[in-house]
Amino acid sequence: MHVLITGAAGMIGRKLSARLVKDGQLNGQKIDRLTLIDVVAPEKPTGFGGAAELSASDLSSPGAAAKAIAGKPDVIFHLAGVVSGEAETDFDKGYRVNLDGTRALLEEVRAAGYKPKVVFTSSIAVYGAPFPASIADEFQLTPLTSYGTQKAICELLLADYNRRGILEGVGIRLPTICVRPGKPNNAASGFFSGIIREPLAGQEALLPVSESVRHTHASPRSAVGFLIHAAGLTREQLGPRINLAMPGVSCTVGEQIDALRRVAGDKVAARIRRHPDELVQRIVSGWAERLDAKRARDLGFKAEANFDDIVRAHIEDELGGKIAN
Amino acid sequence: MHVLITGAAGMIGRKLSARLVKDGQLNGQKIDRLTLIDVVAPEKPTGFGGAAELSASDLSSPGAAAKAIAGKPDVIFHLAGVVSGEAETDFDKGYRVNLDGTRALLEEVRAAGYKPKVVFTSSIAVYGAPFPASIADEFQLTPLTSYGTQKAICELLLADYNRRGILEGVGIRLPTICVRPGKPNNAASGFFSGIIREPLAGQEALLPVSESVRHTHASPRSAVGFLIHAAGLTREQLGPRINLAMPGVSCTVGEQIDALRRVAGDKVAARIRRHPDELVQRIVSGWAERLDAKRARDLGFKAEANFDDIVRAHIEDELGGKIAN
Repeated sequence: MHVLITGAAGMIGRKLSARLVKDGQLNGQKIDRLTLIDVVAPEKPTGFGGAAELSASDLSSPGAAAKAIAGKPDVIFHLAGVVSGEAETDFDKGYRVNLDGTRALLEEVRAAGYKPKVVFTSSIAVYGAPFPASIADEFQLTPLTSYGTQKAICELLLADYNRRGILEGVGIRLPTICVRPGKPNNAASGFFSGIIREPLAGQEALLPVSESVRHTHASPRSAVGFLIHAAGLTREQLGPRINLAMPGVSCTVGEQIDALRRVAGDKVAARIRRHPDELVQRIVSGWAERLDAKRARDLGFKAEANFDDIVRAHIEDELGGKIAN
Repeated sequence: MHVLITGAAGMIGRKLSARLVKDGQLNGQKIDRLTLIDVVAPEKPTGFGGAAELSASDLSSPGAAAKAIAGKPDVIFHLAGVVSGEAETDFDKGYRVNLDGTRALLEEVRAAGYKPKVVFTSSIAVYGAPFPASIADEFQLTPLTSYGTQKAICELLLADYNRRGILEGVGIRLPTICVRPGKPNNAASGFFSGIIREPLAGQEALLPVSESVRHTHASPRSAVGFLIHAAGLTREQLGPRINLAMPGVSCTVGEQIDALRRVAGDKVAARIRRHPDELVQRIVSGWAERLDAKRARDLGFKAEANFDDIVRAHIEDELGGKIAN
């Protein structure tokens, strides 16, 4: 089994690589070859006994996509992409990387004439307000960002290439990944993770929105689980509608804080400081609050049961079980 | 007012050109310039007093899109495209013309730095079975053809360019155009028009499906009306969801035949011969039967009230009011 991961140097890419190495197999087959690419060269995952190729490559550059699949990987996890904020500020780069890069990859698969499994990470940014109380699987895609537009277009391409038998595709719409490890960043969504991560690390965190704001979250651990589960689904299980909203925990910011308090105590939860920011509040108000994700749940995708579990996953996976007092 | 029509040599393009020349104005402004392009040079519409440019051009060819909008048309009717059957049999041509050609046009508008109205003809082929009894405006797009995929992608692009203020876009999803004038063709949908057109012209027509098959139709006259109405809608009226399912007459094949009999008599209706074709039956079973088109109706788009009116429109517009006995 040869696995290719694009965007392998990113947070999810690294966790997916580590998990595949730990599992040693995918869909019951031994992984003997890993190709990891990203715009910066990914590190070799520790403990992998097979052949690992690591390369710095932008799929939208001439020849890069062909090179990426030259070894005919059996499973392609296509995670590479410019993030939401950058796709909005740099129109050309967003379309080039997120749309042209993905299309180049699909076209090279077609040219290579074999039929890999392609797991594509889409996003709930494909949806755009106004929303019903909970977004059904049949709800339209009317993205309100260029990032969401590019993800929706790639979903359509993937479905058409899948329908034509060029590849076996599955697109998974990830909810907000929380708790995202690492440094605070300037993404509008950053506070959803920040208000959990910083207090657990002994730092103060700013909360720019009201506690009534509702959003849907899944842990990095669940996101990796979605990817691996998606790779194992058959064409028969998926049917023609191969792009799926993933499950997650829908909760308010207030419920996030309650969960943090239950898991880590009052002292930790007290490190959150209210600091309203109208711009962030306005951006967040256009985001999906809750999704049914019925098809994904029926197909066996599993997220955390509640936000307490998301907090615990972060403490276990990122903090070695230790909370800063 | 300078109007550009792409795909101007096609059936709808010619009727739109003729209507604009007859009206002499669009959105209350005198039309003094018409640019008509298609892969074959369109004919100059008779009776136009202004400046007409006619050119044979494929928007997906290098430089063609820039040339098409060099005169900065105020309103662009983008009708050009490879039809459904050809997009399915020629993968590369379909994506090149329907996707890359449209994207080139949008990109050249962006480069030109002005903000035209762009009216894009999409199709109900953006929907894919299984369907609810009637398709709501919020229903997802899961096309089952490459043509439908390309139309859905262009809708997403148009909405993003509109959202960013690059242009004023509106996409209209046309139902099946019936009665399509001209010769019978091999399109799977051809019989919907054929069973009306041929009997009215004194010819026998074959009916390949059961009379219980339901479908949605609008006359060529209505389609032209949709285009002109769309050009007059403001950004405020449309909001961010600029792609709209158009209204039409939803009826069964049996009801089509009943309408023909009411309008043209038993002798004409008797020229339809049942000739079941399993392939056509299977293709048609994947098509949308009925659409709410509530937003479009609320925005003032008007189709015929019933299939009798569609038959009458054909007799008036194509047959000079005369039915073959």
